[in-house]
Amino acid sequence: MKLASLKNGDREGRLVVVSRDLRQAVAADAVAPTMRHAIDHWAACESGLRALDGRLRAGTAAGAFAFDPSQAMAPLPRSHQFVDASAFLNHGDIMKEAYKLSIASEPGVPILVPRQGDDFRGPSADYELPTEADQTDFEGEFAVITDDVPMGASAAEALSRVRLVTLLNDVSMRAYVFKEVSLGFGMMRAKPATVFAPVAVTPDELGPAWRGGRVHLDLRVSRNGEWFGHPNGGEMDFGFGELLAYMAYNRRLGAGLVLGSGTVSNKAHRQVGSACLAERRALETIEWGQARTGWMAFGERLRMEATDANGQSVFGAIDFRLVRAS
Amino acid sequence: MKLASLKNGDREGRLVVVSRDLRQAVAADAVAPTMRHAIDHWAACESGLRALDGRLRAGTAAGAFAFDPSQAMAPLPRSHQFVDASAFLNHGDIMKEAYKLSIASEPGVPILVPRQGDDFRGPSADYELPTEADQTDFEGEFAVITDDVPMGASAAEALSRVRLVTLLNDVSMRAYVFKEVSLGFGMMRAKPATVFAPVAVTPDELGPAWRGGRVHLDLRVSRNGEWFGHPNGGEMDFGFGELLAYMAYNRRLGAGLVLGSGTVSNKAHRQVGSACLAERRALETIEWGQARTGWMAFGERLRMEATDANGQSVFGAIDFRLVRAS
Repeated sequence: MKLASLKNGDREGRLVVVSRDLRQAVAADAVAPTMRHAIDHWAACESGLRALDGRLRAGTAAGAFAFDPSQAMAPLPRSHQFVDASAFLNHGDIMKEAYKLSIASEPGVPILVPRQGDDFRGPSADYELPTEADQTDFEGEFAVITDDVPMGASAAEALSRVRLVTLLNDVSMRAYVFKEVSLGFGMMRAKPATVFAPVAVTPDELGPAWRGGRVHLDLRVSRNGEWFGHPNGGEMDFGFGELLAYMAYNRRLGAGLVLGSGTVSNKAHRQVGSACLAERRALETIEWGQARTGWMAFGERLRMEATDANGQSVFGAIDFRLVRAS
Repeated sequence: MKLASLKNGDREGRLVVVSRDLRQAVAADAVAPTMRHAIDHWAACESGLRALDGRLRAGTAAGAFAFDPSQAMAPLPRSHQFVDASAFLNHGDIMKEAYKLSIASEPGVPILVPRQGDDFRGPSADYELPTEADQTDFEGEFAVITDDVPMGASAAEALSRVRLVTLLNDVSMRAYVFKEVSLGFGMMRAKPATVFAPVAVTPDELGPAWRGGRVHLDLRVSRNGEWFGHPNGGEMDFGFGELLAYMAYNRRLGAGLVLGSGTVSNKAHRQVGSACLAERRALETIEWGQARTGWMAFGERLRMEATDANGQSVFGAIDFRLVRAS
């Protein structure tokens, strides 16, 4: 089942069920008016949503209409807990090698970055920033949206509470990342609003691509229409279940938690490229002594998408333009 | 005007207007069923809520009932952005002196810690933790709840978007704080669920105690019925307006943002004590070479309250017991 939130002037938007091929949608009002309502009451809403999905697939859904991703907000437009992991250790290893960083780390302890969930962006709106000088980057990531997770949950128990999977662009200001990490209290200016794919899908929708608490799909990134990378999500060093269990050690996690994987990064980077500029620039620095690829400039377009074994777009595409704040 | 959210089985609770003396309440259903609704639509709801408040004060509010703080959730039970500042530099200075810390800092750059807003706790529920070994501490703080703040807002503009003021206990696990700060990515296990006073108040309710974007009230902390400290919120080195403007540099801030002041800390600590154990222990370490005060144990009670010039409790009391998770 695929779900999206369409703009309707309200902060939470309007929940719709979207067909597997992303061409059709049907409003879920009768079951759950918003994704927030659905995720807050998943046990009560799931069967009704799946019934709508069945009718959509059968071509019998009353009121079905063409799905327009440009009308989509983030699948869950706001979250009370957004945490971004950095669960592809390959990415950190490349950064450390390029810049001779001595980042402290403990074996078995994942990097988990608490973030702000009040300003999630849909896939295609112009993205405004005050300046180009802060070294604008992207990070292509897979993400999960969970139900409630009790305190002390095991990795398996936590993983069973994953309700939806999606794709996000963790927009990053590199001029602030090292600075804020060295201060030690988390990311503020380094991480402005996050951009989401138009659609979130239930794990079963991924078939064999969802295993081990990881999304085994290529995340295809292009910049201004040119290939940038297509690393695979299966190389995560911590699965989403383990990350959630780490987080739930001394607190319960509330429904609608959004947990990002961290920028997708593969050891075979020469073949598959990267999902962020910082990593490509680090690889250039290792190879040639300096970076050759520039940061994002106003007017540039960025696209991210994941396709399944049949070439079908799974979550729809993030495809937006960076612009100067007016 | 004073507002609270009462338990009703729903995640957002039921919004009520509370009398100045905290004795009476009236449901706000006809204006805004929840605090989330009120803060999402403040311009549309404020006059209706103030009209209810007027009738409550006049003794003419239909359906008014006795306000029972034990039935209160956090005033805003969930937030899409919870950020905790550390805006009393005196606290950091004491910690640095006691433990010879060399914490990086930049003049004019506030410490702002992104946090999780999915599990705010009401004032009096038992607080469950898995172990005493993680060095359980409290931090008494004032906090604001804002309306939308546009990107690039000035300190004055951001301050004008503060809708409510309240009091919180930033429960802290000291065994994890230094460790997570040294990793650099923010607080996770160091900061489990946060506890709130039963009531949030509009800034005008504070009268002259609200000035310069600071809450000039004593925050009274007692542990197991014994005085622990009563530092004043007026000594904040950054006002809430400046903190919000720093945050809004490259992002808009969504309605319902909760921003904590950081543990209230005064230079006259010999007279007024502290609002957290870590600070008292640091002062003991400076004076006697080691800490004498122990961390919180299961079964202990903690109380926090702020009173106005007439001795009236402004936000009601946080008063809870620490217990072992069952």
